[in-house]
Amino acid sequence: MTSDIEIARAAQKRPIQDIGSRLGIPAESLIPFGHDKAKVSSAFIDSLADRPDGKLILVTAINPTPAGEGKTTTTVGLGDGLNRIGKRAVICVREPSLGPCFGVKGGAAGGGYAQVVPMEEINLHFTGDFHAITSAHNLLSALIDNHVYWGNALDLDTRRITWRRVMDMNDRALRGIVTSLGGPSNGFPREAGFDITVASEIMAILCLATDLDDLERRLGAIIVGYRRDKSPVFARDLKADGAMAVLLKEALQPNLVQTLENNPAFVHGGPFANIAHGCNSVIATKTALKLGDYVVTEAGFGADLGAEKFFDIKCRKAGLSPAAVVLVATVRALKMNGGVAKDDLGAENVEAVKRGSVNLARHLENLAKFGVPAIVAINHFTGDSMAEIEAIRAVAAGLGSEVHVCRHWAEGSAGITDLAEAVVRMADKPSDFRPLYPDAMPLFAKIERVATEIYRAGEVTAEKAVRDQLADWEAKGYGNLPVCMAKTQYSFSTDPTLRGAPEGHSVHVREVRLSAGAGFVVAITGEIMTMPGLPRVPSSERIRLNEAGAIEGLF
Amino acid sequence: MTSDIEIARAAQKRPIQDIGSRLGIPAESLIPFGHDKAKVSSAFIDSLADRPDGKLILVTAINPTPAGEGKTTTTVGLGDGLNRIGKRAVICVREPSLGPCFGVKGGAAGGGYAQVVPMEEINLHFTGDFHAITSAHNLLSALIDNHVYWGNALDLDTRRITWRRVMDMNDRALRGIVTSLGGPSNGFPREAGFDITVASEIMAILCLATDLDDLERRLGAIIVGYRRDKSPVFARDLKADGAMAVLLKEALQPNLVQTLENNPAFVHGGPFANIAHGCNSVIATKTALKLGDYVVTEAGFGADLGAEKFFDIKCRKAGLSPAAVVLVATVRALKMNGGVAKDDLGAENVEAVKRGSVNLARHLENLAKFGVPAIVAINHFTGDSMAEIEAIRAVAAGLGSEVHVCRHWAEGSAGITDLAEAVVRMADKPSDFRPLYPDAMPLFAKIERVATEIYRAGEVTAEKAVRDQLADWEAKGYGNLPVCMAKTQYSFSTDPTLRGAPEGHSVHVREVRLSAGAGFVVAITGEIMTMPGLPRVPSSERIRLNEAGAIEGLF
Repeated sequence: MTSDIEIARAAQKRPIQDIGSRLGIPAESLIPFGHDKAKVSSAFIDSLADRPDGKLILVTAINPTPAGEGKTTTTVGLGDGLNRIGKRAVICVREPSLGPCFGVKGGAAGGGYAQVVPMEEINLHFTGDFHAITSAHNLLSALIDNHVYWGNALDLDTRRITWRRVMDMNDRALRGIVTSLGGPSNGFPREAGFDITVASEIMAILCLATDLDDLERRLGAIIVGYRRDKSPVFARDLKADGAMAVLLKEALQPNLVQTLENNPAFVHGGPFANIAHGCNSVIATKTALKLGDYVVTEAGFGADLGAEKFFDIKCRKAGLSPAAVVLVATVRALKMNGGVAKDDLGAENVEAVKRGSVNLARHLENLAKFGVPAIVAINHFTGDSMAEIEAIRAVAAGLGSEVHVCRHWAEGSAGITDLAEAVVRMADKPSDFRPLYPDAMPLFAKIERVATEIYRAGEVTAEKAVRDQLADWEAKGYGNLPVCMAKTQYSFSTDPTLRGAPEGHSVHVREVRLSAGAGFVVAITGEIMTMPGLPRVPSSERIRLNEAGAIEGLF
Repeated sequence: MTSDIEIARAAQKRPIQDIGSRLGIPAESLIPFGHDKAKVSSAFIDSLADRPDGKLILVTAINPTPAGEGKTTTTVGLGDGLNRIGKRAVICVREPSLGPCFGVKGGAAGGGYAQVVPMEEINLHFTGDFHAITSAHNLLSALIDNHVYWGNALDLDTRRITWRRVMDMNDRALRGIVTSLGGPSNGFPREAGFDITVASEIMAILCLATDLDDLERRLGAIIVGYRRDKSPVFARDLKADGAMAVLLKEALQPNLVQTLENNPAFVHGGPFANIAHGCNSVIATKTALKLGDYVVTEAGFGADLGAEKFFDIKCRKAGLSPAAVVLVATVRALKMNGGVAKDDLGAENVEAVKRGSVNLARHLENLAKFGVPAIVAINHFTGDSMAEIEAIRAVAAGLGSEVHVCRHWAEGSAGITDLAEAVVRMADKPSDFRPLYPDAMPLFAKIERVATEIYRAGEVTAEKAVRDQLADWEAKGYGNLPVCMAKTQYSFSTDPTLRGAPEGHSVHVREVRLSAGAGFVVAITGEIMTMPGLPRVPSSERIRLNEAGAIEGLF
């Protein structure tokens, strides 16, 4: 079998100026990074303001299982499929993180014959956006300790500094550290730590900012810590916002690349899907909507987390109105949801598919609550039987949704034209998008709304301290923010082993965090890891350059 | 007066493809980063192997003073001057570091009408080289702690891990830290710390590597720490070399930009000039020598450190044979060496210039020991008097060196044609370059040779532990390496307040470090700071984007 990287290397890439030209972007408005990557200039983006928007299509998925679903692959495949049937379609996906490439996972740029290229570069330094975010984040960190060192005029309580440092690397040793050791010239020792760069609030800010001014305003609104009286200290109090914006100026411009079939794709931004909203940048999405008639984008994790945040955070805040949703599933993943072990997925098991399809059905029911029509894409594997697929079709039909079997992984756009045609039919009808809750609802009520309506929890619990914290933020003017749920992606519940469609469970809100710059309140249920570690045998041991200078072992 | 940044912004830049084309680099061999920066592809560089080399000219300086000397400015100016008189000349300078831009210093891309552009981008993310070095360095750091976490099969003594982490930021809080706090899942707590990225051994390796294979070999040879029996553990033992080389693959390709006068300049690599050798990359220099008839490059700090390391480390290891040296001085700096306070530099003071010129004379004497002819460039300031300049001319004439007054800062290439003509005359004669000591000399004897011959020390002292350490490295096969002196740049002695030309002083070698991958032994005299801090009012407070989206406050 041809590997993803072999397919990617064999791609007949076109100069990125040709890809831009098809979208009407003049060469001087493309800032090239090599011959196959470019940023679209802010000036050009500003010039598009008066154009009408295309239709926005979200690709989301059932709860992930070890069997794999192929959400990014389907996003890329659908974009190629829409182009194949003559539509002017643009793809918007997230940028992958460099650090995890050296741990266990391979790249995140699609797969098979539905990929964006250049794959290796997209997965490593790409156009430097994540490095810029790391720099801006750590500049603020350095300014905080420097401020304390020189006298702490802002009276920061060093025990209540909430702004950590970041690195785009899986390094568990940096999760919990003590800094400023070694004597007076190194400052005041305190507990601190690092998160991985994608967990930075600046990543979320970059992805929600509408322009440079908005970016700088949001950066200034970051809360870096609190005084003893609990009053917040902001990044703007440290006069950090201007310099941070300078460091992020280039990164804010979306990156244009191409699919294996030479169709345009924006790959821009990649916030965590747990403590952040898990979508590509608003600027890339809005630019794509000005340039294409159809824009296909994705959201992190399953629809309970990814789609909900896409609607309630990204679309609400950016004023986007999605026209259609594609819910990706695989026969294998539904079997796992139906109780089949990973090693037994090869055998036909219609009953297990039926049992597991309760997960699919639950997501379809949930998506309907946002007023956007949904369609099911079965990302096809060779072993899938007709009977298994028919079982899924019956479940979806009961909820008014079509099911299309897609072979883009093996066949590229030729394998996904049915879905593309159906999506066009659906997206061209008026939709009735509405977020799940109004801005004015109290914060805890918003959490309850998501937990009961989407997760189908029977109750939502929280310590008094958590409720008091929410009340305090409401008193300080943050009550109108949306909530960003941090929950396991493997289940509707907070128990990652509960597959299928659990209901009546209890959701405990362990902690809440205010991302005042990004503009949401994070509600944490369960353990959330913001700095991954490396496995016993990291993939870095296999990664090297071969004699031709090409990268081996990355995927 | 027009500021550097105003001059830089007013530059009429040509497309980088045009600059490359003048050097015979085809557009497909240039990897563009925007329209005014590009990397030269490794494949193209490989294709140049059989071409003859141009003449290599080093620009160095007297010991730096707060009055400023303008070494980079003169390097850029001389390159422009050589082009103006019809020579095919290429400039090679170092890349500036991002972190210090937010502290006190402005940029490092020349000044006045002798600058390389785009100035802001060169000083910030540029083409991402430093970010790549940071990533490669910290990948190795993560692999070390991960190895210990999973059982420490290599039996590393965690008290003797010498490999730290790096960040391109001035952050004193990270100098001394304790990592892996928070319980078993975060590893084994230990003392650690961060240096600034330019202090990374990987920076020195990138600048000394001759190609990708040599880079990977050097990365593997890095010593990350020692076992209890003092035997070294190498990066290759952690199988880190391949993945690190992958991260550095793009960074190894030199960056091409242009001067204000549209002449070609390579800006590539920027190792510390104390714990490393302080020169731009060997690959950039060698590429420039294949493409130009004259190559003008610089070395860090004054000639006692910069030129000595350029000759004894870079030229020795890369097989380079410099043809001429330009020693930069200013009347003001010589006055300071002659005992005048900074506030009194405006008044003519011929006697002070004469007194201070002992510093200039000492450097000229030293340069003669390397067998390369030297010439003096006076970087002209408006207040300089003819009598002051004549005083310098007399001192230099006594040592057989010409003096040329250069007005490139105010006038660009038109102000430096005399120097350019003189340099050509000098460089076109055969030179007799020889390093100061042979490879076979014992390590401590090499240190003594540099200290007595160049610094004019009367004695070199070291604790027994230091001498034993050197003997141990010699026994392990590292005795043939050159030494890299870490000494204050402000004096020939180890006392930064001793200006002029001290002699007979004592040099105490406090510590030695083995940079086995870079290929030198660092001898540390005095305090060496490898992670700077920020001042009370960091320049970040003034840095921001103006309404036109341009960067304010960076310079």
